[in-house]
Amino acid sequence: MKKAFEKYRLEPDQKVQLNDWDTLETSAWDGGKKDAKLHLLELNTQLEKLQELLYAERKQRILIVLQAMDTGGKDGVIRSVFKGVNPSGVRVASFKVPSALELDHDYLWRIHKQAPAKGEIVIFNRSHYEDVLVVRVHELVSEKVWKKRFDHINAFEKMLHDEGTVILKFFLHISKEEQKIRLQERIDNPEKQWKFSSGDLKERGLWDKYRDAYEDVLEKTSTKSAPWYIVPADRNWYRNLIISTVIIETLESLNMKYPAAEAGIEKVVID
Amino acid sequence: MKKAFEKYRLEPDQKVQLNDWDTLETSAWDGGKKDAKLHLLELNTQLEKLQELLYAERKQRILIVLQAMDTGGKDGVIRSVFKGVNPSGVRVASFKVPSALELDHDYLWRIHKQAPAKGEIVIFNRSHYEDVLVVRVHELVSEKVWKKRFDHINAFEKMLHDEGTVILKFFLHISKEEQKIRLQERIDNPEKQWKFSSGDLKERGLWDKYRDAYEDVLEKTSTKSAPWYIVPADRNWYRNLIISTVIIETLESLNMKYPAAEAGIEKVVID
Repeated sequence: MKKAFEKYRLEPDQKVQLNDWDTLETSAWDGGKKDAKLHLLELNTQLEKLQELLYAERKQRILIVLQAMDTGGKDGVIRSVFKGVNPSGVRVASFKVPSALELDHDYLWRIHKQAPAKGEIVIFNRSHYEDVLVVRVHELVSEKVWKKRFDHINAFEKMLHDEGTVILKFFLHISKEEQKIRLQERIDNPEKQWKFSSGDLKERGLWDKYRDAYEDVLEKTSTKSAPWYIVPADRNWYRNLIISTVIIETLESLNMKYPAAEAGIEKVVID
Repeated sequence: MKKAFEKYRLEPDQKVQLNDWDTLETSAWDGGKKDAKLHLLELNTQLEKLQELLYAERKQRILIVLQAMDTGGKDGVIRSVFKGVNPSGVRVASFKVPSALELDHDYLWRIHKQAPAKGEIVIFNRSHYEDVLVVRVHELVSEKVWKKRFDHINAFEKMLHDEGTVILKFFLHISKEEQKIRLQERIDNPEKQWKFSSGDLKERGLWDKYRDAYEDVLEKTSTKSAPWYIVPADRNWYRNLIISTVIIETLESLNMKYPAAEAGIEKVVID
């Protein structure tokens, strides 16, 4: 079953029409939602153990990039997929509107600072991809400038990869109808109202432009070193299952080992 | 006279045999050492003004990379060429042996953090080039790893350039004989003894390996976006003259302007 999720991984240069990618489908999971949620708890435990091993071995660096339209579920993924992991070795870097100091530097400056260290998993909640998404849609820089950034980004991620960082990138793919439901929920539910801003409606009005920009990103920046996964994300449980499984399979493929014990440890007696 | 220094700039892919580059020559300066030193004082004043303009305009970022064999004169350049500039807008980033935290990240992590902001001149005293120089000579990483770094570095500098950073790279080229004199001076002069360590002699023993590594660096990483200059550096005064002039000409070519005054400033009366 597991490897079924590989179909969501984009090959380099693969053409992408997001409308052809079903946001509701759950074809790689035989059971229902309830089974999936139970299975996710098992995956949480697996991830917890793998993360501890990663931290102990201190050889690999893991970078996970989450991108989505508003309400796509980035926060939900972080909460659900990483439930139970030790925060000492897992760090979330959220990239909001850049500060004045950040804007004074090149756009990768604030990103690179947050790159993972050995033994660390870093989750990018939004990322350098905003510099070819929101920046493009709102025309914050000229086309001449943002067009060059696809090459920069591929080179940056290639360098991270060559130097020993494993990179996984997930685009949480929701439908415009699902976004409507989720925004309405934010308006209606007093505990979610803090998440809503009228700016979200303006962004929703730019849906098609964002979709076009995302298609460009997905086509141009899915590489062997740093592949994109298009995750059907209208159903949270399925989305979580895919992402959790892909991360776990990737960590398992690294053949990590606990560092060797100090020589003679078996003879040590604690007074 | 000024443009005469352009001959020290390497074209992309230009082959380099450092033994063919005279370390003693002073052919682009008609006068003697005394005239040169007086002229440098004028250049200091020019640079001071241009740097103030750069700082006020706050549009451009300037990155100056200094590399050399030991005793090549990097510290001397910083002291002499930047004499009088306002430290608010000029920053020296010295890259020594990496810390444990730095080693836990990719090699460009600590470098990128120090990249200049708008309005700033940053001088790299050593740089990411050490990761294909000392690291190569001492085999701190495998050839497979360091060979990929030339591409990373070119892509990194291209990105900085595309995003508005002007990059100038100077290799201070001294002869092995001149290094002998300078090391001896460090041993004999009590005020310079702090600069000497017996490790310097080991490095001197690796002169040919460093030269080969530098030739590779100079051939592979001199680009339109970020050219290398090979500076004859046995004579400090000539070395300073070249570097100061190249920096000043570069700053002048940017056509910087003071920001416009606030509207109505001419009617403001201070009580």
